[in-house]
Amino acid sequence: MTVTTPEGFRAAGVAAGLKTSGGPDVALVVNEGPDTAVAGVFTTNRVKAAPVLWSQQVVQGGSVRAVVLNSGGANACTGPAGFQDTHATAEHTAAALTSANAYQVGAGEVAVCSTGLIGERLPMDRLLPGVTAAVESLGDHGGVAAEAIMTTDTRPKTTVVSGAGWTVGGMAKGAGMLAPAMATMLCVLTTDAVAGPATLDAVLRAATRVTFDRVDSDGCMSTNDTVLLLASGASGVTPSEAELASAVTAACHDLARQLLADAEGATKEIAIEVVGAADEDDAVEVGRSVARNNLVKTALFGNDPNWGRILAAVGTTAAAFEPDAVDVAVKGIWVCRSGAAAEDRSKVDLSGRDVTIRIDLHAGAAEATVWTNDLSHAYVHENSAYST
Amino acid sequence: MTVTTPEGFRAAGVAAGLKTSGGPDVALVVNEGPDTAVAGVFTTNRVKAAPVLWSQQVVQGGSVRAVVLNSGGANACTGPAGFQDTHATAEHTAAALTSANAYQVGAGEVAVCSTGLIGERLPMDRLLPGVTAAVESLGDHGGVAAEAIMTTDTRPKTTVVSGAGWTVGGMAKGAGMLAPAMATMLCVLTTDAVAGPATLDAVLRAATRVTFDRVDSDGCMSTNDTVLLLASGASGVTPSEAELASAVTAACHDLARQLLADAEGATKEIAIEVVGAADEDDAVEVGRSVARNNLVKTALFGNDPNWGRILAAVGTTAAAFEPDAVDVAVKGIWVCRSGAAAEDRSKVDLSGRDVTIRIDLHAGAAEATVWTNDLSHAYVHENSAYST
Repeated sequence: MTVTTPEGFRAAGVAAGLKTSGGPDVALVVNEGPDTAVAGVFTTNRVKAAPVLWSQQVVQGGSVRAVVLNSGGANACTGPAGFQDTHATAEHTAAALTSANAYQVGAGEVAVCSTGLIGERLPMDRLLPGVTAAVESLGDHGGVAAEAIMTTDTRPKTTVVSGAGWTVGGMAKGAGMLAPAMATMLCVLTTDAVAGPATLDAVLRAATRVTFDRVDSDGCMSTNDTVLLLASGASGVTPSEAELASAVTAACHDLARQLLADAEGATKEIAIEVVGAADEDDAVEVGRSVARNNLVKTALFGNDPNWGRILAAVGTTAAAFEPDAVDVAVKGIWVCRSGAAAEDRSKVDLSGRDVTIRIDLHAGAAEATVWTNDLSHAYVHENSAYST
Repeated sequence: MTVTTPEGFRAAGVAAGLKTSGGPDVALVVNEGPDTAVAGVFTTNRVKAAPVLWSQQVVQGGSVRAVVLNSGGANACTGPAGFQDTHATAEHTAAALTSANAYQVGAGEVAVCSTGLIGERLPMDRLLPGVTAAVESLGDHGGVAAEAIMTTDTRPKTTVVSGAGWTVGGMAKGAGMLAPAMATMLCVLTTDAVAGPATLDAVLRAATRVTFDRVDSDGCMSTNDTVLLLASGASGVTPSEAELASAVTAACHDLARQLLADAEGATKEIAIEVVGAADEDDAVEVGRSVARNNLVKTALFGNDPNWGRILAAVGTTAAAFEPDAVDVAVKGIWVCRSGAAAEDRSKVDLSGRDVTIRIDLHAGAAEATVWTNDLSHAYVHENSAYST
């Protein structure tokens, strides 16, 4: 049920002393082939961490043999020295893999991902021995690898989706800085399907566009977001692009759902379904504006179906709609019709964890769903104490 | 020190039973002339409350005799019936003023402002008698009027700025939904200077652009924001437009500062000074992105000078800058130089209430300051319990 479920992949997770907890903090995923095709999507934040700058270059080459990941430090905003640290990590990983295997690995085939505090250098004297240990313990250890990339996550996130004779596996981390317009966390997907880099790229972009890109937990975009898709071709089966896209999208959906369920301090998982939009972009814009509105999020934390705040958030967008034509339902109760009060709001029972908000713009036939969390005391607590 | 300090203005504040607290909740400001010139700026939210739709029309006429304001209900998202309530309030105010005075007042010269919960009709059977009582108690009562417009405000906000033989007075309310690209609260400014509607409009827009528009407490834009400037001409003095703009800007600055100091649940008042920007729009965009970032705001609540989160917020903008050229100082300590760690962050003492963040983009000579608050437990508490 992990990245090592598809054929052709080995993984490891080891404790290198980067995290004060002493838990596993270095993960390695190795593609044994026969293919080493890759695709990736990365944060659109203009302040990109060193490993993002490095891995973007690596992925452009179309071939990745290994992904090395660490928690306990983001290696973001660390200047040229931080980039050199990432480069050295890739070099070290390549050398260790080459000496332990029958094949040659170059640093240019090693993607690097980091997560943790921004602005601090990584302790290389601990990280590099950790990489060596990870290479030595490679095996069917996708579960430990998923643990090693956790930061404030309370549980590892893994998934498997089966095709006809081939499989997609995945792992992800992320519980804060979940935000918009990009991947919003670290995620490694593996498949033993046969697919080239161009196909993988199309499939991955289609999948993230409707899954990770539409999870907006706290509106804050990370410097480190990375989603990688590795294909080993070990199954010998070449699915159609549509089949592969469907499986990868399902895997991303499952991981996105797990991220939302484990978001920092959240007490609600909120689906904002926008329907009747003029086009999909409008629907996403409206959904995101509601997802990011602190007054809506605090109201839901307080079990308050405050549709007025929802309408006020919708009103800040440029989407096509008439204010006096908008309907809003909370958990199926249409508390707002034609921009004014309708069904009795006291009928809405918000005591559970799952909340669906449905907004009908009455401006067309397009729709989209954006997922978010509430804004709770625990979110404030966790994020006011994170680095101290 | 209030709206009744300039000559030619009377005001009142009465308890009409709209607020459960029993405190004053209906305010009236009357311009006795000789002039009745007016200008206004209103929320840019496309979901506008009925009193905003009404007052926009009234202000276009260039003449306002009275402003009637209520707390205890926003009259937003109330449909055609809610608009009719606003119209009836203006008619009632005009009739009561006409019968109590020597001059005729039409409903088209009465601006209306409302604040409170969205989505509920106003109790007109209590509001209209309150208006009658306010007309009967008109006098030098700017202080009570300022109390009557409070919602979650903990104290009234008033100001006076003196010119050469003329004066500007003002009152404002607002402690949440303080947000961007507009007025962000209710505010009535009065002056006994001689100035026509066109001059007032230019002066008011120049003033709000650099004051209220740059306060972004929680990123949430209200449906009701209104700023009105009334000129009686009673001093007989005609200041230059620059003189009047300077005084009105100073009055808005003072009120904006008071709003920020009283923002819901805030423990910090944060000035984000963006310098070295290519142009002023870039500087404002960068300042706003930091002001709205929940991870920055929770870090500051936790007394954590987390400059990495600041840089991550800057990276989400389209402003001109190079990530490896940005400097960040927190309370004068340059914790980030050239996009990486610099001075020891432990030197930053965040224990006080005032925080200055200075961001040098090194991309030009423009600058702007945006003001915000931290995100605290009390904010979550107050906004999760507001309507229940």
